[in-house]
Amino acid sequence: MKKGVIFSGMRPTGKLHLGHLSVLENWVRLQKEYECYYGIVDWHALTTGFEDTTELKENIREMAFDWLSVGIDPEESAVLVQSDVKEHGELHLLLSMITPVSWLERVPTYKEQINQFGQVGKDISTYGFLGYPLLMAADILVYRATAVPVGEDQLPHLELTREIARRFNNIYQTGIMTDPQAILAKVKLLPGIDNRKMSKSYGNDIALNASTEEIHEKVSQMVTDPARIRKTDLGHPEICTVHTYHTFYNEHEVPDICARCTTGQIGCVACKKQLAAKLDQFIAPIREKRAELAAHPEMVEEILQNGAQKAREKASQTMELVREAMRI
Amino acid sequence: MKKGVIFSGMRPTGKLHLGHLSVLENWVRLQKEYECYYGIVDWHALTTGFEDTTELKENIREMAFDWLSVGIDPEESAVLVQSDVKEHGELHLLLSMITPVSWLERVPTYKEQINQFGQVGKDISTYGFLGYPLLMAADILVYRATAVPVGEDQLPHLELTREIARRFNNIYQTGIMTDPQAILAKVKLLPGIDNRKMSKSYGNDIALNASTEEIHEKVSQMVTDPARIRKTDLGHPEICTVHTYHTFYNEHEVPDICARCTTGQIGCVACKKQLAAKLDQFIAPIREKRAELAAHPEMVEEILQNGAQKAREKASQTMELVREAMRI
Repeated sequence: MKKGVIFSGMRPTGKLHLGHLSVLENWVRLQKEYECYYGIVDWHALTTGFEDTTELKENIREMAFDWLSVGIDPEESAVLVQSDVKEHGELHLLLSMITPVSWLERVPTYKEQINQFGQVGKDISTYGFLGYPLLMAADILVYRATAVPVGEDQLPHLELTREIARRFNNIYQTGIMTDPQAILAKVKLLPGIDNRKMSKSYGNDIALNASTEEIHEKVSQMVTDPARIRKTDLGHPEICTVHTYHTFYNEHEVPDICARCTTGQIGCVACKKQLAAKLDQFIAPIREKRAELAAHPEMVEEILQNGAQKAREKASQTMELVREAMRI
Repeated sequence: MKKGVIFSGMRPTGKLHLGHLSVLENWVRLQKEYECYYGIVDWHALTTGFEDTTELKENIREMAFDWLSVGIDPEESAVLVQSDVKEHGELHLLLSMITPVSWLERVPTYKEQINQFGQVGKDISTYGFLGYPLLMAADILVYRATAVPVGEDQLPHLELTREIARRFNNIYQTGIMTDPQAILAKVKLLPGIDNRKMSKSYGNDIALNASTEEIHEKVSQMVTDPARIRKTDLGHPEICTVHTYHTFYNEHEVPDICARCTTGQIGCVACKKQLAAKLDQFIAPIREKRAELAAHPEMVEEILQNGAQKAREKASQTMELVREAMRI
């Protein structure tokens, strides 16, 4: 017996990078303990990206490759594409009937977006965009999830989900809707190679399946201590991106490297080479697994079909209960 | 070949009355010329009536009995319950992504309701209520309807539907969405027995399947010329509800009855008896057909199942085209 049900999802934004890994590692850990539904939430991608959907299908496939290559196990968890499980949409519609507009308007991300984009006069607020936290609530509640792994920035969304669930149970005098709890993973944030937040749009990311050459290239571009010109200059690891990466991927050599850096005994070039080798060692099995999967896209297609099937079974049970409670 | 596709629907509010008949007669006429989808739109009933759904199922069945008893022909038209055709919900969700919130906020009925109920401080504006004109748009466009029979009060909704359709076609460079035209029927409004708008909530209605006794009872309560006490008082048909009803259900005797009323040769009691007899004659076949249907609810259930099946076939074709156009 597993100790609960989890739903979590990601928007299909294309190939993932190392910055996404901690979330996925958390998912991998959870799949032994929980009945997990992991969704590539393509409908969510439309809430802001409806105008250009040319890469949506490709992005979905790339995301599936990435998830499976880091250890999301389709035997253990349901890996699904949201739009394959129409029950997400049906529950979204039914919950829309009981959810006050004001609850959605006060979601912080909505207000931020309105403030950010409102100024340029673009009518960004579509009905779907206003409703995306409600779609999230449906994503979670349609599996009667008891727990959701989230980052701190997602807590307001989960709180809204719980409010909607309570309101539903209260109006229809039922206990169908679960009260999903946050699983807050302690995420150590990996910066991009320029020490800003890692993001594909900044070009400072390292892909989850980067080749040996790409790894060396990216590591060689990493921002180090700017005051250090020569090897003999004493380094300051605490402001060096290469150092941060060593703490992630080469932990037990950190004391030695630090000692040599701060005493001018190792240059940045050598230090980077050491990191690149370690990083390559770390990425190699992911890269190989991914190449295997990419060589057999029909297998991944089948995994997604099976995942959707498993998800539909659970979700359609929930919808039967929901319709019964609402007497429709 | 039929000359187009029609969708129209009604919220399941319970047994219909004579005031609803002109709309239904119009539907009956249209089913020979058009491929018709007539929907009992139960999801719409939730946009305002989500708090008490105890009678929803019963109301759906009553509405189906009424529709079929006045001549909606399930061999000719698809008679469906909206929530049986999930594609309405899916299209609603997809269209929500491209529909600005501001378009929905300016729908006249929305503003009216906010003004009407906003004062009492009740949070009536749910997300589903704000979105109901969008759900209407999905109801129509999911069948690629080319025409919609509407009353004048519904014109803003249809206009919104057409705007959303154009926006979809424009964003996704497609022609999938139709440009449904209004079929404005000239509806002669039948008043209630107290001469106000006929409404079950006023208690001034005559049910579509009223019994002979009920008809006589209701007609006997009709408001006549208040200045007329005795038969010999000269009547004023133009302010008499009984007269209005004669023009609907006893047209060719109107000149004779008017002549006798205005000259004090027929009393209100006799005049009402004459109307009640005619009305009973009119209602009898509807009542009988309805009794037949009510005796075989399983037949009606089957009609609704078949209607939903036929509707799903059409709607799922549309959804395939929609997904293809949106590349999801």
